[in-house]
Amino acid sequence: MRICRFNDNRVGLVRDDHVYDVTAALSELGTFSYPLPRFDPMIAQLPKLMPLFEEIAKTATPIKLSSVKLLSPVANPGKIVAAPVNYQAHLDEAIAEKETFSRHHVRQIHETGLFLKSTSSVVGPGEGVELRFPDRRSDHEIELGVVIGKAATNVSAANALDIVAGYLIGLDMTVRGPEERSLRKSVDTYTVLGPWFVTADELSDPSNLSFELSVNGEVRQSANTRDLVIDTPGLIEFASKFYTLEVGDILLTGTPEGVGPVKPGDRISATIERIGSMDVEVR
Amino acid sequence: MRICRFNDNRVGLVRDDHVYDVTAALSELGTFSYPLPRFDPMIAQLPKLMPLFEEIAKTATPIKLSSVKLLSPVANPGKIVAAPVNYQAHLDEAIAEKETFSRHHVRQIHETGLFLKSTSSVVGPGEGVELRFPDRRSDHEIELGVVIGKAATNVSAANALDIVAGYLIGLDMTVRGPEERSLRKSVDTYTVLGPWFVTADELSDPSNLSFELSVNGEVRQSANTRDLVIDTPGLIEFASKFYTLEVGDILLTGTPEGVGPVKPGDRISATIERIGSMDVEVR
Repeated sequence: MRICRFNDNRVGLVRDDHVYDVTAALSELGTFSYPLPRFDPMIAQLPKLMPLFEEIAKTATPIKLSSVKLLSPVANPGKIVAAPVNYQAHLDEAIAEKETFSRHHVRQIHETGLFLKSTSSVVGPGEGVELRFPDRRSDHEIELGVVIGKAATNVSAANALDIVAGYLIGLDMTVRGPEERSLRKSVDTYTVLGPWFVTADELSDPSNLSFELSVNGEVRQSANTRDLVIDTPGLIEFASKFYTLEVGDILLTGTPEGVGPVKPGDRISATIERIGSMDVEVR
Repeated sequence: MRICRFNDNRVGLVRDDHVYDVTAALSELGTFSYPLPRFDPMIAQLPKLMPLFEEIAKTATPIKLSSVKLLSPVANPGKIVAAPVNYQAHLDEAIAEKETFSRHHVRQIHETGLFLKSTSSVVGPGEGVELRFPDRRSDHEIELGVVIGKAATNVSAANALDIVAGYLIGLDMTVRGPEERSLRKSVDTYTVLGPWFVTADELSDPSNLSFELSVNGEVRQSANTRDLVIDTPGLIEFASKFYTLEVGDILLTGTPEGVGPVKPGDRISATIERIGSMDVEVR
């Protein structure tokens, strides 16, 4: 199932080139009082919601996908966990380009560990990326994104995929420079999640997905998740050694070689096999 | 005004050694539907709630402070922003102790920038700290914490204190090692916020506050916020250059020299002038 959020916080099922508005099912979620939960309420109720989504979609009027504004498919992630230099060829390019990649940040992922991006940086593809520092380089980084579906801590790699609700495309937009990643990658609009998430029942194995990113039609990044240094189950194991992964947390698995700068007016197109494609405008 | 959260998500006013339960005022906040707000609903309504808190406290039965379990005074921070090596003497000790402090992390704050801690790491003093890696060193770090009261971006230092809702004590517990700060400092229970927050109308100038941390009665850290490398307004300016500060976000201003390891059974006592004191058990 492909689940999107669009326009004014509507929720939709995506089939071929159409969206079916299934927002009515969210009445199942009820309301929340202060203090608010620290997890994503829709992802938490997915097993109950999915049959309702199916049912409502049967009588929904199809809306052309091209006519909607796509939001982040996960509205309330508690944390965005991301993997640095998790493709060997990207580490190699970072080692080679001394001017661009601060020496402090060019290390093996096993040593560097994972970093956080702010949840305030999250947008959907329809919202676009707003560059913040005209005088500094901001790069595109396409990554396979994982939506956590069950709260878990100290998960073994063998059981890791059991806690996954689905997959999406993540753009880990990045200001280059000396500061820690968790600052440079947390700028408003610098985490694009979309175009929807594909539920894990439809995509059970994330270990062999081709993906590609182009800017204004020119291919910049092209790789396959089989080349991850630490694969998706391994990353879940690694992250959950340090903290509890909560429902709705997003894990960005790392970007391959080919990162490069974008400028206002650019159009980024990102595709991951078996998930879909999204276009993101840079302003 | 000193506002705490305690026991089973109660909200209280603190006066001398007593808590006055003012939870009834929270009916003003109403309820929330999915998608949930990305800010803290109580902090957002503080100007409206404070007179209600006063009113309800008049007839509330005083509860002994020593009898309650103190939670994090902010329930729904969207992000925890923290300053590394922001006291010169702490940078000096980090430079000196090569075994403990990874070379990658010992740089000036102006170059390193700020980092993020996970919101899933937040607890109150009554919940205590649970050490996660018995074979690695976990250190105490006491810091002045700032509660953001108004959403703002690109704030100048001159106007920075206008967006502050209040102040609290933060313990930025830290696993030592080579990984990025945003991982090592995001372990569950590794961000202790408390004992309450003091509203900014009662503490208008955070630039000259003495503070102290002891472990089992032995003083380990003792400093004053006047020795910050980048002061509180400067940190707000710095952070808000990169991203929007949201209502309820927490800014931890950095720890002074004297950081050191804790072990299960230790009792950390932390005091900041004009805020208060809190005891935190390590297990």
